[in-house]
Amino acid sequence: MDSAEIKALDAADPLAAKRKLFALPDGQLYLNGNSLGPLPTAVQQRMTELIGQEWGIDLVSSWNKHGWIDLPTATGEKVAALIGAAPGQVICCDSVSINLFKLLAAALQLNAGRHVVLSQADNFPTDLYIAQGLDTLLGKARCQLQAVSSENLLAQLNENVAVLYLTQVNFRSGAMHDIAALTAAAHAQGALVIWDLSHSVGVTPLELDKWDVDFAVGCGYKFLNGGPGAPAFIYANKAHHDKFQQPLQGWMGHAEPFAFAEEYEPAGGMAQFLTGTPNILSLVALHAALDVFDDIDMAQVRTKSVQLSELFMSLITEHEVLQSLQLESPSNAQSRGSQLAYSHPHAYGICQALHARRIASDFRSPSYLRFGFSPLILSFTDIGKAVATLAEIMREGKHLDPAYQHRQKVT
Amino acid sequence: MDSAEIKALDAADPLAAKRKLFALPDGQLYLNGNSLGPLPTAVQQRMTELIGQEWGIDLVSSWNKHGWIDLPTATGEKVAALIGAAPGQVICCDSVSINLFKLLAAALQLNAGRHVVLSQADNFPTDLYIAQGLDTLLGKARCQLQAVSSENLLAQLNENVAVLYLTQVNFRSGAMHDIAALTAAAHAQGALVIWDLSHSVGVTPLELDKWDVDFAVGCGYKFLNGGPGAPAFIYANKAHHDKFQQPLQGWMGHAEPFAFAEEYEPAGGMAQFLTGTPNILSLVALHAALDVFDDIDMAQVRTKSVQLSELFMSLITEHEVLQSLQLESPSNAQSRGSQLAYSHPHAYGICQALHARRIASDFRSPSYLRFGFSPLILSFTDIGKAVATLAEIMREGKHLDPAYQHRQKVT
Repeated sequence: MDSAEIKALDAADPLAAKRKLFALPDGQLYLNGNSLGPLPTAVQQRMTELIGQEWGIDLVSSWNKHGWIDLPTATGEKVAALIGAAPGQVICCDSVSINLFKLLAAALQLNAGRHVVLSQADNFPTDLYIAQGLDTLLGKARCQLQAVSSENLLAQLNENVAVLYLTQVNFRSGAMHDIAALTAAAHAQGALVIWDLSHSVGVTPLELDKWDVDFAVGCGYKFLNGGPGAPAFIYANKAHHDKFQQPLQGWMGHAEPFAFAEEYEPAGGMAQFLTGTPNILSLVALHAALDVFDDIDMAQVRTKSVQLSELFMSLITEHEVLQSLQLESPSNAQSRGSQLAYSHPHAYGICQALHARRIASDFRSPSYLRFGFSPLILSFTDIGKAVATLAEIMREGKHLDPAYQHRQKVT
Repeated sequence: MDSAEIKALDAADPLAAKRKLFALPDGQLYLNGNSLGPLPTAVQQRMTELIGQEWGIDLVSSWNKHGWIDLPTATGEKVAALIGAAPGQVICCDSVSINLFKLLAAALQLNAGRHVVLSQADNFPTDLYIAQGLDTLLGKARCQLQAVSSENLLAQLNENVAVLYLTQVNFRSGAMHDIAALTAAAHAQGALVIWDLSHSVGVTPLELDKWDVDFAVGCGYKFLNGGPGAPAFIYANKAHHDKFQQPLQGWMGHAEPFAFAEEYEPAGGMAQFLTGTPNILSLVALHAALDVFDDIDMAQVRTKSVQLSELFMSLITEHEVLQSLQLESPSNAQSRGSQLAYSHPHAYGICQALHARRIASDFRSPSYLRFGFSPLILSFTDIGKAVATLAEIMREGKHLDPAYQHRQKVT
């Protein structure tokens, strides 16, 4: 692929204008939107107003006046539009981890009599840890995590499985599951499903209602660009509403929080998933960030995501010096999310050397380089530059520079 | 008390200069710092920098470069200084409700063999709901909430009680418990204690280490001024560290989060209380807000808090028209936090009429008016004005105006 062809791709890109919605500095090549999404400029303006006017001047009356109290639901509805959920099934609150705990306990209640939580051994660790925590708390007769390889999932789906508990796009390899097919397989065995959409929401077309998904969670700070540690979301299919009681029951999930009753009575619908007071600063940021998606067609996002990744892979093969990078992602685009992983013994040094050249990627222990492709901020020219710089670094041995070997706290 | 005496109190106030650290608008009389603390101007500046530079420009590298990863601990240490905790015992994360769940499960593990969680029937509802949720999840043989009246607490402290589970300052009446005495009584019966400090931290001198408290939580958005829905904190006495495993185990509480291991292994000390990715926007706000306390003597804060409340009570008695307000708080300052509650059949209308005159108080169902006294922002003159306005409203019957009877979502 030559530079004229790359320019042609940019010229034909229907999403090219979206980059100007973000505060990304010129010259920054950001292949890390899968870890922390960039700042939408609208968020910056909205936060100034929130802090200065709403908190600073209108103070406690803002709970009503500026609709703070409705933010978990209002933000949830914006997410709903991205995941194929009819209204009333998504709410934003807490973290992915906390929300997984709520859903897992709810699903085990709904499927009482079964105790196995079937997952994948290379699922994102927090998903496994949450299930292990519930397992320890309740005992294996009520909750037993069984984590197998991706290839063995279908074979292990049996009449003991209460919940199939998976992440759609693998955090390391980018391997993508077929939600519709696995959900149908789980249902055929009488199991419920909980999907973690953290690495797919905002970059992949999702149709949770159509696929008859039971429950899902997802992350607000990756492709949704909600800011570091943004609130997560929960999806619960309407079919299950009001048939369970999630255990992290706090005052905001009460049917009448401001009656201050002594006994808990869960709110109807999604509101019972709320626990403590909503975190307004971070909900407002996520709420404003989601406006970026207002007029976006997720099918176009997916098409560009695949094109960007395929271009990256193809350019890698053109450089002799890059042949030491081992592709650890599925080579078939249909089986992949919007990221690519390569392993290399010097992955850490390469990541640091790229960073020094203003190309953000990330390193995942023990030896993975991860590149994320955010279709709203990246051009095809960016991909060309990134691979050319990577080849230059490797040719010059910059990745072996001792300055780039020092491990930082967050790697 | 005449206006000359009130002016003399202001002239002698060592905390008078603190108000200029807050962005409170002129003319706003804010008797609601016990619900949502006002905006410290330093927070406004810090958030602009965080969003524009750290998120916007430095992006994902800010986890290391700007110490985002250390914020739960760094913010916790600032709180530690306000609650009499030696380093390494406080961390900031999640909400009060979520943190109560972690602590309650931990305390029941530490005191295995006992199952009663002894609390107060008029505790803040979320505290009760969280215990009820754990009770439902684990069964009464492992967790049984027993909520009694304040007067009956000591009588019910027996060999079945695993945890005495109380809030220091009652959210409605402001009645304040003696933490040292109740903790000693609990220990004498072999029970552990969990104290909720939401309505006392930042306005009351606390000595958790000295009082031998086992566990505590507290709210970041009331007298700590951390912003709406700010993260909460957890205190765990060093004596208990590494002897339990809290059940909401997420990747940030792992001994090596970035090793991405399949099996959970809790971090040592306080870090195991972390669950999901820390919420950076709200942690930075709370971290910056706590600077207000840098050179503040909590004994002075308490003295002024008592003076403000006593002045308010005394001025109320001077107006015939205010005699229909029934004091629902202890009349003795030593038994009270930094708030006063009065009941009145038209409490809601009074609260709304005060709001229209730029005096913020709040209403608590069914018929309570609550006034909070934040010594860092209120002058004695403010209190004089507030009571004079209240008397005027009642004299003119403004509180009966139909416009003030409409109940809003958040009351």
